[in-house]
Amino acid sequence: MEHYVVTYDIADDKRRSKVFKTLKDYGTHVQESVFEVVLMTEDYVELRHKLLRRIHRDEDSVIFYRQCRACEHDVERLGRKVELVGIGDIVL
Amino acid sequence: MEHYVVTYDIADDKRRSKVFKTLKDYGTHVQESVFEVVLMTEDYVELRHKLLRRIHRDEDSVIFYRQCRACEHDVERLGRKVELVGIGDIVL
Repeated sequence: MEHYVVTYDIADDKRRSKVFKTLKDYGTHVQESVFEVVLMTEDYVELRHKLLRRIHRDEDSVIFYRQCRACEHDVERLGRKVELVGIGDIVL
Repeated sequence: MEHYVVTYDIADDKRRSKVFKTLKDYGTHVQESVFEVVLMTEDYVELRHKLLRRIHRDEDSVIFYRQCRACEHDVERLGRKVELVGIGDIVL
């Protein structure tokens, strides 16, 4: 399992909504255009493929920043707290 | 020097503009709310301090994701190309 920070900048509202919904199935929404995801290689390939189908390559941008085990704990969050609820977590 | 991905989500236009301008002095604007910065420890402390002064902690969010030497090259960019011009680069 690898950790990634996925950021996106989508020029069109409808496409942005599709990208959001796609990423929501894989990870945690931490900021308006930022998700934190934990993926096995096959999920990474699948997610990448889905996103490439949804975006316009000349107008939109999606970036995957991989975070190794050391980096994944080296995150500083300023300001409002984000509920880091993973997709596998049970919310009671 | 350490590499960071800095993402922000600012509730107010004026504050967002200030955060943008602050980050622009330190790094490369890669997406609407994402900068890539390379900082020495003292610059990190300075930037963090400036951002904390500009944001409202209960409404806004800024996240620093550190990237180690291995991770900084492990970035996948889908879609439109971003001009990765650093602040120290000379553009002719």
